[in-house]
Amino acid sequence: MLSFSQLVCCLCLLFFVVFSKAEPDFSLLNISVDTERLVEDLKILGQFSDGDYPGITRLLYSKEDKAARRYLIALFEQSGLSVSWDPVGNIFARWEGSDPTAPAVGSGSHFDTLLNAGLYDGTLGVLGALEAIRSLKKAGFQPKRSIEIVAFTSEEVSRFGVGCVGSRYMVGSLSVEELMKLKDSEGVDFDSARKFCGYTEELGSSTTSDDRYSAFVELHIEQYHILEDKGIPIGLVTDIAAPALYTVEWKGPGGHAGSVPLNERQDPFLAASEFALSLEQLILKDPTNSRATIGRVEVYPGSAGAIPRSVRLSVDIRDINEESRTKLKEQAMEKAASIAQKRKVKMDISHNYSYPPAKMDPKVIAVMEDSCRKYNLTFLKMISRPFHDSLFMATKFPTGMIFIPCKEGKSHVPDEYASPEDILRGVEVLAETLARLSYL
Amino acid sequence: MLSFSQLVCCLCLLFFVVFSKAEPDFSLLNISVDTERLVEDLKILGQFSDGDYPGITRLLYSKEDKAARRYLIALFEQSGLSVSWDPVGNIFARWEGSDPTAPAVGSGSHFDTLLNAGLYDGTLGVLGALEAIRSLKKAGFQPKRSIEIVAFTSEEVSRFGVGCVGSRYMVGSLSVEELMKLKDSEGVDFDSARKFCGYTEELGSSTTSDDRYSAFVELHIEQYHILEDKGIPIGLVTDIAAPALYTVEWKGPGGHAGSVPLNERQDPFLAASEFALSLEQLILKDPTNSRATIGRVEVYPGSAGAIPRSVRLSVDIRDINEESRTKLKEQAMEKAASIAQKRKVKMDISHNYSYPPAKMDPKVIAVMEDSCRKYNLTFLKMISRPFHDSLFMATKFPTGMIFIPCKEGKSHVPDEYASPEDILRGVEVLAETLARLSYL
Repeated sequence: MLSFSQLVCCLCLLFFVVFSKAEPDFSLLNISVDTERLVEDLKILGQFSDGDYPGITRLLYSKEDKAARRYLIALFEQSGLSVSWDPVGNIFARWEGSDPTAPAVGSGSHFDTLLNAGLYDGTLGVLGALEAIRSLKKAGFQPKRSIEIVAFTSEEVSRFGVGCVGSRYMVGSLSVEELMKLKDSEGVDFDSARKFCGYTEELGSSTTSDDRYSAFVELHIEQYHILEDKGIPIGLVTDIAAPALYTVEWKGPGGHAGSVPLNERQDPFLAASEFALSLEQLILKDPTNSRATIGRVEVYPGSAGAIPRSVRLSVDIRDINEESRTKLKEQAMEKAASIAQKRKVKMDISHNYSYPPAKMDPKVIAVMEDSCRKYNLTFLKMISRPFHDSLFMATKFPTGMIFIPCKEGKSHVPDEYASPEDILRGVEVLAETLARLSYL
Repeated sequence: MLSFSQLVCCLCLLFFVVFSKAEPDFSLLNISVDTERLVEDLKILGQFSDGDYPGITRLLYSKEDKAARRYLIALFEQSGLSVSWDPVGNIFARWEGSDPTAPAVGSGSHFDTLLNAGLYDGTLGVLGALEAIRSLKKAGFQPKRSIEIVAFTSEEVSRFGVGCVGSRYMVGSLSVEELMKLKDSEGVDFDSARKFCGYTEELGSSTTSDDRYSAFVELHIEQYHILEDKGIPIGLVTDIAAPALYTVEWKGPGGHAGSVPLNERQDPFLAASEFALSLEQLILKDPTNSRATIGRVEVYPGSAGAIPRSVRLSVDIRDINEESRTKLKEQAMEKAASIAQKRKVKMDISHNYSYPPAKMDPKVIAVMEDSCRKYNLTFLKMISRPFHDSLFMATKFPTGMIFIPCKEGKSHVPDEYASPEDILRGVEVLAETLARLSYL
């Protein structure tokens, strides 16, 4: 004898098998996410790390990244997906739809990390997309458009100083010439690192066609605490703020710490300190919209007994408004120049990157809203101040992002945490959204 | 036929051979320093470096240090000196006097460097002492007291965060327990590093007896430009300023560079920047006597996209007056605490070292003055603000220091430079001083 719930499942399965090529009635699609398995997968991926767990360090093309890639490919293949990759190591895992030549529905995120970072940033969007597909398969769903997971190569800037390498390469915003010029802090060039990781085919331009995806959806932790504070489980991103990164270097003659009197010094660290505080003052004029961060500081030679000779700072500036960001950058750099002049140190600014902000696609957002409603989940439309691969995917494909809360808004730290309950809700909305998009 | 000058040389030689045990007439001692050979030796020693010449990096017990030690020993032995060493790797090269049981005259300096430092700091005092002995031998001089070169292990703080390891060990101001606790930034402990360098005998306390040296003399570059500015070739040190080193660490929760608004941040780098500028203001109240330097800055995790979680600073404070230095340190640390409180970051201070100032011995200075007069060299009595192995040797033995000018006062930098003319004068005064002290 079948129980009532087993009977319902069988009927759903029958429905999808019979009517798989027509638009299904999504109210009958009954998704059951295996959160436990997903959290287990996230933890296993976290083991591929050059550092003390739960602090995760998985830099692009490192031996840990190489191993993580093997793990992901095995996981995708176990779930019956066809795996491929491109010359920079973007990994694609495709669930063939009933209309395999139609533009696919893409979903994914990155799986590299900053130094000593967390378990969920990026990886949730990769393994969450896999779990969405596994739960859709279990529910007997058959997609019309293919659904393709993209595990992007290096969204973080940690190794080569450039973020979103994989997504930028795909949409043509990062050329082969630019890639070939990249070097890490130890002088290893991008091409050698790529080949070390097994990507030995020639590095031509990306062949991603404009109609590869009908839509792209990225699931991500919020990386701040607005959702948590408001007790809302789902954020639907409307805009991604415009990021820019600069490197400011200060140089002086150095000298012996014991001998040179302070009124005769040209100390680049004191210049850099003054600049850091000025930059803070500048941003505090409008703390709601603007952000500036000095995250990387290299002081040379770095001896207790020697006045520094050079200081190199990363200066990350973001604003939802591109013009405001440019104005902010100009004010900061004017300040840097006047400090350099006053302190008689040399100052050089180099531009790492600056991108325009992105708008998420209203139709994709509408589908995500419907998906939330089906599961009785409240949602908040919001701006993403961190940037993501979606910033670049949005330049070519209708794109949307689903945010879930993370504890105390912490991210890029070892105690970054998203609860299984929030993960469950995020994957439910993602799976439903992918299913619906595959018939749009 | 002998020329007149050859005849004078032979007579001098005869004088020293016949009257070697009585006090010689030093007006007849005719020292001829081979500056070219000495400069060549300095340059060869500079090749034992982990870095781009002329920037020299030779850290304690590194493979470069190990190789430099072999070179020095070979050079000492070629000059007919008996070489020995102690368990921390202080190297002794002894020219036996006619009264070998009498306390010897010591002379020397260190041969390790900071990161990417210069060719002359320390090494001039080691190879200069060797050249002094070679020129005394050539002049036919026979010492009464033995003359012993000391090539000290690690005067610089670069590897283990503690300076003057060799001299402190010799005079008993650094215990075996303290040495055993030392670790470098990569976690290698002092004892393993020492053994890697070939010093495998048991690390007991130093056996340097109180009467090992009747006097100790160190030749060094000034490391500032007072002598150069005044056009005076020789500085005779009267006092060495009191050094102190602290490590101040700031900690915050970190976070994503894009999301956390600046008015909610607890950024340890901004706290450290504010502290650096406060410290500068504090010293600028009395720039003549006090010095403070932040030379080593470690920012963690050091990613452009992450707010720093910790910043560690070395804080080097010096003053000729020990009380002033202590007061300065207290004021600085009060400031650090109030900044930490205001910015809601944690702050920890650890004490690396602090030593009292040292007075050079008036009798040794008097001999150095006589030596200067013999060569018609003007001299300046002066304070050394950098500290040296002599700071510690002075706690046990009558000690003196001879300074020579260095170009633009630069030191601890690759373009540190002392002219052959100034080196010649410094070694003449050193040789004459050692000769005279060996009969006192």
